[in-house]
Amino acid sequence: MPRSPEQAYAELTQRLKTTALLESCSSVLGWDEQTYMPPGGAGHRANQLSLLAGMCHERATAPETGDLIAEVEGTHLAADKDSPVAANIREARRDFDRATKLPRRLVEELSHTCTLSQQAWITARKQSNFKQFQPWLEKIVGLKREEAQCIGYGSGVPYDALLDAFEPGMTAADVTRLFTPLRDELVKLIAAIRDSGRQPNREIITRLFPTAAQREFSIAAARQIGFNFDEGRLDTAPHPFCSGFGPGDTRLTTRYDEHHFPGAFFGTLHEAGHGMYEQGLDHEAYGLPTGAACSLGIHESQSRMWENFVGRGRPFWKFFYPKLQQAFPEALGKSSVEDFYGAINDVQPSFIRVEADEATYNLHILLRFDLERPLIAGDLKPADVPGVWNETFTKYFGIVPPDDARGCLQDIHWSGGMIGYFPTYALGNMYAAQFFDCASHELGDLPGAFSRGEFGALKQWLNEKIHRHGRRFRAQKLVEVVTGQALSPQPLVKHLHQKFDELYHL
Amino acid sequence: MPRSPEQAYAELTQRLKTTALLESCSSVLGWDEQTYMPPGGAGHRANQLSLLAGMCHERATAPETGDLIAEVEGTHLAADKDSPVAANIREARRDFDRATKLPRRLVEELSHTCTLSQQAWITARKQSNFKQFQPWLEKIVGLKREEAQCIGYGSGVPYDALLDAFEPGMTAADVTRLFTPLRDELVKLIAAIRDSGRQPNREIITRLFPTAAQREFSIAAARQIGFNFDEGRLDTAPHPFCSGFGPGDTRLTTRYDEHHFPGAFFGTLHEAGHGMYEQGLDHEAYGLPTGAACSLGIHESQSRMWENFVGRGRPFWKFFYPKLQQAFPEALGKSSVEDFYGAINDVQPSFIRVEADEATYNLHILLRFDLERPLIAGDLKPADVPGVWNETFTKYFGIVPPDDARGCLQDIHWSGGMIGYFPTYALGNMYAAQFFDCASHELGDLPGAFSRGEFGALKQWLNEKIHRHGRRFRAQKLVEVVTGQALSPQPLVKHLHQKFDELYHL
Repeated sequence: MPRSPEQAYAELTQRLKTTALLESCSSVLGWDEQTYMPPGGAGHRANQLSLLAGMCHERATAPETGDLIAEVEGTHLAADKDSPVAANIREARRDFDRATKLPRRLVEELSHTCTLSQQAWITARKQSNFKQFQPWLEKIVGLKREEAQCIGYGSGVPYDALLDAFEPGMTAADVTRLFTPLRDELVKLIAAIRDSGRQPNREIITRLFPTAAQREFSIAAARQIGFNFDEGRLDTAPHPFCSGFGPGDTRLTTRYDEHHFPGAFFGTLHEAGHGMYEQGLDHEAYGLPTGAACSLGIHESQSRMWENFVGRGRPFWKFFYPKLQQAFPEALGKSSVEDFYGAINDVQPSFIRVEADEATYNLHILLRFDLERPLIAGDLKPADVPGVWNETFTKYFGIVPPDDARGCLQDIHWSGGMIGYFPTYALGNMYAAQFFDCASHELGDLPGAFSRGEFGALKQWLNEKIHRHGRRFRAQKLVEVVTGQALSPQPLVKHLHQKFDELYHL
Repeated sequence: MPRSPEQAYAELTQRLKTTALLESCSSVLGWDEQTYMPPGGAGHRANQLSLLAGMCHERATAPETGDLIAEVEGTHLAADKDSPVAANIREARRDFDRATKLPRRLVEELSHTCTLSQQAWITARKQSNFKQFQPWLEKIVGLKREEAQCIGYGSGVPYDALLDAFEPGMTAADVTRLFTPLRDELVKLIAAIRDSGRQPNREIITRLFPTAAQREFSIAAARQIGFNFDEGRLDTAPHPFCSGFGPGDTRLTTRYDEHHFPGAFFGTLHEAGHGMYEQGLDHEAYGLPTGAACSLGIHESQSRMWENFVGRGRPFWKFFYPKLQQAFPEALGKSSVEDFYGAINDVQPSFIRVEADEATYNLHILLRFDLERPLIAGDLKPADVPGVWNETFTKYFGIVPPDDARGCLQDIHWSGGMIGYFPTYALGNMYAAQFFDCASHELGDLPGAFSRGEFGALKQWLNEKIHRHGRRFRAQKLVEVVTGQALSPQPLVKHLHQKFDELYHL
């Protein structure tokens, strides 16, 4: 008796769910590595994570999984292409094909190398010593080039194979097509701001903001916008991130600087945006494509929407500023909300991507995109990264990084093997603008709601329009389904102009 | 070509090491569950741990493992019975036989039930509501009875099958033989103390000791006695424990009460003692029996030695008390070290085991041993536990627990399926006394060293005599190898008399 398609599909989903469950164990170990693990634990952790990566890879590439997918493809289950079941079959195929192209040896070696490399990066960044990190970057670039060869790329651009891991279906050419008009607009806008002669006083946000109070205030704000702390937490990590362990457990991290309020606060809102996406996924579909995030760009659209479109807006601070003054009476007791609003939206060239303003931020991404492609093509040697970084940075920003900690060592991504990831940040800004524009039309007076501390309508809209679908639609399709338009840089440009034309009297 | 014994042994060790590595992933998840996991994460964590438990069990019971063991048993590799290789073969056989007796279904169900049950226990204990916990205890007792049936017990006592998991080779009859004379001596000693008319003033240790300073002081003391914080950490958990994740990563936990200094402090010394055992294991042998702790009783001997024989002694406080006064000037600035020493060694009946003094502590264990045997034999129903607990407690201590949080709900063990574990605590006290007696003879003036803050000689002695052997010798044999004598309650009785005869002028 051959299996029915329904039986095969049930068996397939069971396999996928178990693999996801095993993968989620790695998430816990990865989170601990970044938050609490003592330095001496790095070697053993690398062994643990590499074993789990190998086991997950083995499960993901098991011939039985391929057989099951083949059995349900082309049946009535996959007939309605937009149905959740068809999406699960389509994406299971995509994941299986991608995974089977990678030998287990490479998966384990990447996992092992990246775990150790992240520890080396932490030390190198602390000491601003690129030479210490260089051999690790060389190893990782070598392994990622090998990965690209294994995956293959019809386009002739090896980078596409890596980008596709984070933003399925998108190519370097697509990114370039979106980034080029964005860059032109940004360069004009930033020049206009520079020439406006206006300069908010940043001093207000560099006063003393004690860490404990920052933490408390950040948690209160994350809770208010809708992150559920019964199903999540906020901890400290050298590079902030969000990790969804699975249903009911989503971890946020941030880092504190007593003399820079926005770092931890907007970092927390940002990660809470990621976290609310994770918390908004369909828990019943956990382990299946329809229960997982659509793409990193879509993920980033959620974080940057809450961080920037909500968190750096006037209505948000109309509600929160009096509470902020209560939390930091010495720093802010005598300062106006307008001064504060100006300071958190001050547009000017700066070294650290995660602390950049909304306008210049995207240039930080363009810079990384400019370096990653030749690194993977073999046209840029890891040893030359600091030089090329500083040169390109100076070209874009007109200032020179004083050291590598504030230059090419600032991000965790390369040490973690995440090459091809950066473009998703700027894509996320574009998605966010387009989604927010649409939500504003559909939901009516969002500024009014925000100024009363009411964020539920937007959260629910995101839950329904985006989170609940998981990977049912690819990112490009999702944007069209939700907004009726293809992805474009225009909503982002419009948003930036609306905000900064007013603030800088352009 | 058949494999040589050497080849089979190499393959066996590789298998054992990989299984240990996978098991150590569960340790990380278990630690997180107790320390940082938000309440909503319990369900998913139970699924994760149950999956890992099942996978570890499958690896541990794989027929290939059994074949490899059979291939090396009886060869020249196992000829020298006391050699590390022979010990690895002997203990691998023991573990394999034990594991293969348990069906994977039972292992997964136990893991899943215990994870959820521990969350239920946390709530029930907080609310002092036994009824909430009762169904979980019923499930667990049922599963553990089933486990005992699967394992088997030649003795006719099902409890022996569970005890053997924690203290290999020991039976309830052995424990009774050791505990009976100990109980007789303890009852006499405690009566004499009560009748001495002397009563140290405990008020001194219930003054205000701010949590942050307690944490800092506890860490400093744990570091001073030799716990390596580059390869470990101290966190907070509702029930303090130590978890060795593997080479280079050992986690301690404690809990703080601002108005009870000894709780967190001696708890930390206790867990640091466990931690130093983990840190002292042979890292090269990680994953093999010779790289693992000998038994829970031996483990407990290490924790209780540092907590009581060192930490509650006069020489220790000769060194630490001035520092303690500096750390807590308001609480202790005007109190003498003698008053403090009396207060931390006050012998009197109390409700909470982990806060009990050295003399009454063992009665807490006898009580639990008295309840566990009939629970597993089926002669005591879980529903009757609170009543029988309180009755037995009153018989031993002459006081009645005011609620179940300070009665039968105080310990995590039963909720975690650890039935048969408690006796190892009192065994640990006996081992500790016998080891410490021996170390004192061999190392000369330990009190003098302690009073100068020098703990390295004792730590190194423990490293060499106990830690480095792992499971090379069974616990009973190890005691004889190290001290030249079989385990006896006499060194413990002698230690308690030396200490309390002087303090209470007996």
